[in-house]
Amino acid sequence: MMRIVVDAMGSDNHPGPDVAGAVMAAREFGETLILVGDAPRIEAELAKQQTAGLSIEVRHASQQVTMTDAPSDVLKGKPDSSMHVGLQMVRDGAADAFVSAGNTGAILGIAMLRQTGVGRIAGVKRPALGVVFPTEERPLLIDNGANAECKPEWLVQFGLMASLYITHMLDIINPRVALIANGEEEGKGNLLIKETIPLMQASGLNYIGNIEPKEFMRGVAHVGVTDGFTGNIIIKTAEAIASYMSAKLRESMKATPLTMLGGLLARPAFRQVRRRLDADEVGGAPLLGVNGVVIVAHGRANAYAIKQAVGQARRMVQNNVVAAIADGLARHTEL
Amino acid sequence: MMRIVVDAMGSDNHPGPDVAGAVMAAREFGETLILVGDAPRIEAELAKQQTAGLSIEVRHASQQVTMTDAPSDVLKGKPDSSMHVGLQMVRDGAADAFVSAGNTGAILGIAMLRQTGVGRIAGVKRPALGVVFPTEERPLLIDNGANAECKPEWLVQFGLMASLYITHMLDIINPRVALIANGEEEGKGNLLIKETIPLMQASGLNYIGNIEPKEFMRGVAHVGVTDGFTGNIIIKTAEAIASYMSAKLRESMKATPLTMLGGLLARPAFRQVRRRLDADEVGGAPLLGVNGVVIVAHGRANAYAIKQAVGQARRMVQNNVVAAIADGLARHTEL
Repeated sequence: MMRIVVDAMGSDNHPGPDVAGAVMAAREFGETLILVGDAPRIEAELAKQQTAGLSIEVRHASQQVTMTDAPSDVLKGKPDSSMHVGLQMVRDGAADAFVSAGNTGAILGIAMLRQTGVGRIAGVKRPALGVVFPTEERPLLIDNGANAECKPEWLVQFGLMASLYITHMLDIINPRVALIANGEEEGKGNLLIKETIPLMQASGLNYIGNIEPKEFMRGVAHVGVTDGFTGNIIIKTAEAIASYMSAKLRESMKATPLTMLGGLLARPAFRQVRRRLDADEVGGAPLLGVNGVVIVAHGRANAYAIKQAVGQARRMVQNNVVAAIADGLARHTEL
Repeated sequence: MMRIVVDAMGSDNHPGPDVAGAVMAAREFGETLILVGDAPRIEAELAKQQTAGLSIEVRHASQQVTMTDAPSDVLKGKPDSSMHVGLQMVRDGAADAFVSAGNTGAILGIAMLRQTGVGRIAGVKRPALGVVFPTEERPLLIDNGANAECKPEWLVQFGLMASLYITHMLDIINPRVALIANGEEEGKGNLLIKETIPLMQASGLNYIGNIEPKEFMRGVAHVGVTDGFTGNIIIKTAEAIASYMSAKLRESMKATPLTMLGGLLARPAFRQVRRRLDADEVGGAPLLGVNGVVIVAHGRANAYAIKQAVGQARRMVQNNVVAAIADGLARHTEL
């Protein structure tokens, strides 16, 4: 049976959604879920759940990382945080994967700690956060914020790691990889993009060129590569526009009795669109390049989103994605 | 009477929308509109319009810039393009403003030509493209693509120019200026943002800090400053998500007779939201820092959007925005 750690202190509303999500996951997947964090609070949440027959363990951790903690302060300042404890279990082989809805920078930093973290896969220059974009085609955007400032050769590695993730998770051979830029024509892009293009062309990846956000969303490439600053801005802009449009639609519907009736009748259609564009559906963001399965869920994750993130972690373990990335890097030593 | 040049060869569907928009503008504003481009084609379009009593002139230009032309090839390679001719009229005082829905890079390059362009305002390091974001609060994003690679001191000048634009166009004293970043906490941002923060703090602008795309859209700042690569990615992501959601909603509405009826009844509400988020409503993008009024409309502009862009150019002339920027830069020589 697989053993998956869930950081009980991760989400904005922890430990409720984190614990409930782990219970849902234990029931759906039949694996062992290990909740790490403040044991009394975890037990109190577990008492609210039906857990009979499920394999759920609790592991106490006396400290917790907050969203406003600076990652650098956390690394040595909170050595018994739920992140430290959970990631060390993966490092030591006591667990197969780690899922957290907490502070991304802290997770990355703690994962990379020499003594207690999982560290990086040999040959990896910088781990990066992939995120499945919630349009129908489900393209993968990488990096989504792990590295605000990037070098061209890092971007090529992000493309390789994401390519291998897509291949092994979705069984797609030779996935299409693109750089995300402000235009598709030659000469478009900032300095980073321009310097990365020749490296991509020589990389052996199925590099199809530069694409704009619109093409990325439509799945023109399976993988859209960008620096972590731009990637994070893309995700945040997309979320902001989607929620702005939903709010304005709800508001406009209230204008007249007829539009209100229309809104009621059309509600299933709205729900469908919102569900499709809902980050909860697609699970969490895989942290690629670290030497273990680590999934970062959204801070606003509810129980369902945590469960989905656990499902994604489980598939990464089943499909040996970490080993595939290690193997891919060993074969592409020029990257 | 003011004289405003419209590039008849600018939009994707030129010269139809460009000519029809100029006619609409001549009627609405009572100013002289000068259509520059292929005279026979312009005359043919004008023949379809009611122009009696309007002040419309045609100025022939034998060449035209396409969307795929590299700006560098255009500068000397097409010296009689509608952009060259139109911008030279502004330079020579034969016109007060230039409006084009054409290739932004070419417009910028031609505007900056030493012999025939309007050039830059004294003290301007780099002109930048402002764009009014179409949420209700109408915040101004700068730069939207004129400078894919930026230096910190350029960003501070973009903030100053946009601040003066807001003050003089909207009568807002001391508008709020923010840097757009991947988080509001200290330590967020890429290298460019981090290096720009202390300069912003020392600038004398009403700098309120870093904001995320969500806060920008809500009007937390009047001006959101970013490099042209990121700014263009933000605008393109926002457009792509808005059109994706609209398309998916239309599709979902067709699911059942009830949702279809709901969609019909709610149609006025949809229209309202789409109109609000429609770039056509807010006019074009002012090119700030050049020594003349230059407005760049969207390539997909229809006649209405061209007319709106002319209206915006007219207000810039009326409110002496170029002189205000020149004056502001002269007073902030440290920038």
